[in-house]
Amino acid sequence: MNSSIIRFILGYVLKTESVLLLLPCLIALLYSEPEGIWYLPVAAVCFLTGFLMTRKKPSNNVFYLKEGCIATSLSWILLSFFGCLPFFLTKEIPSLTDALFETISGFTTTGASILSDVEALSHCSLFWRSFTHWVGGMGVLVFLLAIIPLSGGSNINLMRAESPGPSVGKLVPKVKTTARYLYLIYLGMTVIETLLLVFGKMPLFDAVCTSFGTAGTGGFGIKNSSIADYSPYIQWVVTIFMILFGVNFNAYYLILFGKIKSALKMEEIRYYLLIIFVSVAIIFLNILGLCANAFEALTQSAFQVASIITTTGFSTTDFNTWDASCKVVLVLLMFVGACAGSTGGGIKVSRLVILFKTVRKEFTSYIHPKSIKKIKMDDKPVEHEVIRTINVYLVTFIVLFVLSVFLISFDDTDLITSFTAVAATINNIGPGLEMVGPTQNFAFFSPLAKYVLMFDMLAGRLELFPLLLLFNLSIWKDLFAYKKSVHSLKKERNLSH
Amino acid sequence: MNSSIIRFILGYVLKTESVLLLLPCLIALLYSEPEGIWYLPVAAVCFLTGFLMTRKKPSNNVFYLKEGCIATSLSWILLSFFGCLPFFLTKEIPSLTDALFETISGFTTTGASILSDVEALSHCSLFWRSFTHWVGGMGVLVFLLAIIPLSGGSNINLMRAESPGPSVGKLVPKVKTTARYLYLIYLGMTVIETLLLVFGKMPLFDAVCTSFGTAGTGGFGIKNSSIADYSPYIQWVVTIFMILFGVNFNAYYLILFGKIKSALKMEEIRYYLLIIFVSVAIIFLNILGLCANAFEALTQSAFQVASIITTTGFSTTDFNTWDASCKVVLVLLMFVGACAGSTGGGIKVSRLVILFKTVRKEFTSYIHPKSIKKIKMDDKPVEHEVIRTINVYLVTFIVLFVLSVFLISFDDTDLITSFTAVAATINNIGPGLEMVGPTQNFAFFSPLAKYVLMFDMLAGRLELFPLLLLFNLSIWKDLFAYKKSVHSLKKERNLSH
Repeated sequence: MNSSIIRFILGYVLKTESVLLLLPCLIALLYSEPEGIWYLPVAAVCFLTGFLMTRKKPSNNVFYLKEGCIATSLSWILLSFFGCLPFFLTKEIPSLTDALFETISGFTTTGASILSDVEALSHCSLFWRSFTHWVGGMGVLVFLLAIIPLSGGSNINLMRAESPGPSVGKLVPKVKTTARYLYLIYLGMTVIETLLLVFGKMPLFDAVCTSFGTAGTGGFGIKNSSIADYSPYIQWVVTIFMILFGVNFNAYYLILFGKIKSALKMEEIRYYLLIIFVSVAIIFLNILGLCANAFEALTQSAFQVASIITTTGFSTTDFNTWDASCKVVLVLLMFVGACAGSTGGGIKVSRLVILFKTVRKEFTSYIHPKSIKKIKMDDKPVEHEVIRTINVYLVTFIVLFVLSVFLISFDDTDLITSFTAVAATINNIGPGLEMVGPTQNFAFFSPLAKYVLMFDMLAGRLELFPLLLLFNLSIWKDLFAYKKSVHSLKKERNLSH
Repeated sequence: MNSSIIRFILGYVLKTESVLLLLPCLIALLYSEPEGIWYLPVAAVCFLTGFLMTRKKPSNNVFYLKEGCIATSLSWILLSFFGCLPFFLTKEIPSLTDALFETISGFTTTGASILSDVEALSHCSLFWRSFTHWVGGMGVLVFLLAIIPLSGGSNINLMRAESPGPSVGKLVPKVKTTARYLYLIYLGMTVIETLLLVFGKMPLFDAVCTSFGTAGTGGFGIKNSSIADYSPYIQWVVTIFMILFGVNFNAYYLILFGKIKSALKMEEIRYYLLIIFVSVAIIFLNILGLCANAFEALTQSAFQVASIITTTGFSTTDFNTWDASCKVVLVLLMFVGACAGSTGGGIKVSRLVILFKTVRKEFTSYIHPKSIKKIKMDDKPVEHEVIRTINVYLVTFIVLFVLSVFLISFDDTDLITSFTAVAATINNIGPGLEMVGPTQNFAFFSPLAKYVLMFDMLAGRLELFPLLLLFNLSIWKDLFAYKKSVHSLKKERNLSH
């Protein structure tokens, strides 16, 4: 295994984070908050570690999917570890476990919080908390690919390990250019949302943080009531942008280059919008009686559906008090998730569409045993390889899910709490039902349960395989063996001199 | 489509049922119960209908998987319809929907009941209720295959549609002989259990009914307290026989012919026993504090684990009051189910083992991209076809499950009730948690919910595909078109005369 390139990438990630950590310092200056000072030493340590790790260029630039996966999962763990230190040092989150939980929840764009009173945080920490969503949404390695000079064609493997969805399409032949376009679209849309929010009389700071949370489909609010106390206009802007950020970014690329027709033809997006429409309709009819008028019912149902399917997790009402059928719809949407190639989590619409198509094909083969039809998506045949990976993904997902619920259940909370707590973290949503409902938080869980949920958040964000790969002992032996062999090689060379 | 053979098979099924319906009459004579008289007209109508349907031999004997599936699902629906009439006519179950629910629950070996007081039933109805378990356990078409002269090699398709598990192994080259062996083993084991129960001072009638419930992995008890009031000896006999009836019957066939070693080597059985062992251990440790002594804790944990994993559904305690972690284990076991080729329901151990192996293979391919390894089961490579079908099965299962929970949720029961009600019926277990827990029943559900659950029971017993095939319109067109074409053929012939 090429462990030198992994070290090199990790170093770059840390250097990037050190720069990002300076932003909350600026905010602290603006609001003259003493908490901001703690961001500086963390940034310094971060930079120093990163600097030491990147001082020596990697011996070769080639890496495979394995290296990509390991670099990605270790990056995210490191990012979260350094990212949580300011919360801990400012004593705004006095427990290191809780600080780590909050930060992983941020970077993975989950939005599950252990804070009961977010309004007590300083502006700089609120900013950093929401900013982690923005960084995690598009991915920090995708960002790196856009800026660092990693030569060699194999860096698509980094993107593959970090990007959501069953297959990664390069928008343009060069990975670097693809990554740049992605970040440009991402930045552009975030800016537009912020402007629209400010236009609706939302304070600039609130608007920026809310946009970060929407763009990354994260869901950390800066108010205890999430988005509930803002005007319907603001709620609608957030609703629409949540839905937009749940769309496959390839569509925006196509639109950017005038191919609007091809963008609108994308099957996944059609199904995504259909699911949203049907869900909103069901919930709208169900809560009509509970609301003051039809417009309020529509606003609330659209907001909650958009928030859950895109795995954002903002809320404008306590849906835990809704009817059972509404709750079932929401729990289902938790698993559906957004489109592949978006910033959203969950299983992803395209995976489900492909799974449905395999089932339909199977039934056809019962009725017409001799028919041979390939499954198609966007009029292109789906490779057998992709179907196999999706099936394996689904099984792995179920296994991890079930195991997590089992481990959480030792806390002896009710089954709905443990079930939806895992669903809300593994799908990177945020709130669940009952004790982890929209008006509650995750603070009451035992440390064991918290670490299980942290793992689920990371596994969900990185789509299971990269993180689970770390559990394979041979990987560590490989890393170790490589270093040893390099060491022994050098020794031999020294002897021969 | 060969619809004449379907008609012919359905006719035979009804004739068989008419004979079976005479057994409760005998019981009624023994206990001189007036209710028994109602079984006679039902048997007569059943026989007459069957007689008319089999009067004309089918034009040809060839049928494919499609015909097998349709014949099977229609058989089970007809069986249940006629089977429920006595309950309704004796007024022991005054609602036809409820009577149908109880009968489908019986034939599918689910054991979910709408009765709050089973002890109020007459002996003949109690017998019929438990007997449906025994008939449904091994399958009525398998029984037919053992006795009726269906020539042509394609009758394996009937067995394939009715037998649980990812693939049907013929024990011997001839389907007829295989079916006979299966029923002989089944009958033999039932008799042995009855004798052992009688030996433990259980009344003969109770012993026979309990054995029926165990053999079919059904779970209808004849006492309101299920098995709780019987002695520990009886509880252990039932525990052991539940586990035995959850074993792949191929193993017994091998043992019968002296190949004990090959039987013990069967991978599925090893995993099955391992799962039971681990689950019993977890629950034992958890309930140790609740019980009078370790023996009682062991008896209770072993009984409940065996009952749930084999999808029988007997109970000796109200596990709804246990800790969350125990409940999670039991809910998981609901889905695991017994071995393929047993009388148990659920997803089946072998399906899960194969799914796990595909995941492990996928991870290996991440680490060693060039390794090509076929998945093996019992040292034989698993065909790609089988893996594909299992994946499709899993997806279909999830879709049906989710849809059912959604439909049930309109009853506005809590989510655990609706979730476990569907889990308990689709996996053919019986009791769930909360409002459908072991001390409760299914009577409170709305008719819509009851029909959904009936569908789930049938779909679960027939392993989804055969029943779902009925929803394909082209099947009905085919059936209709065939008759029309035969009709028009005859007309043409008449004209030419």
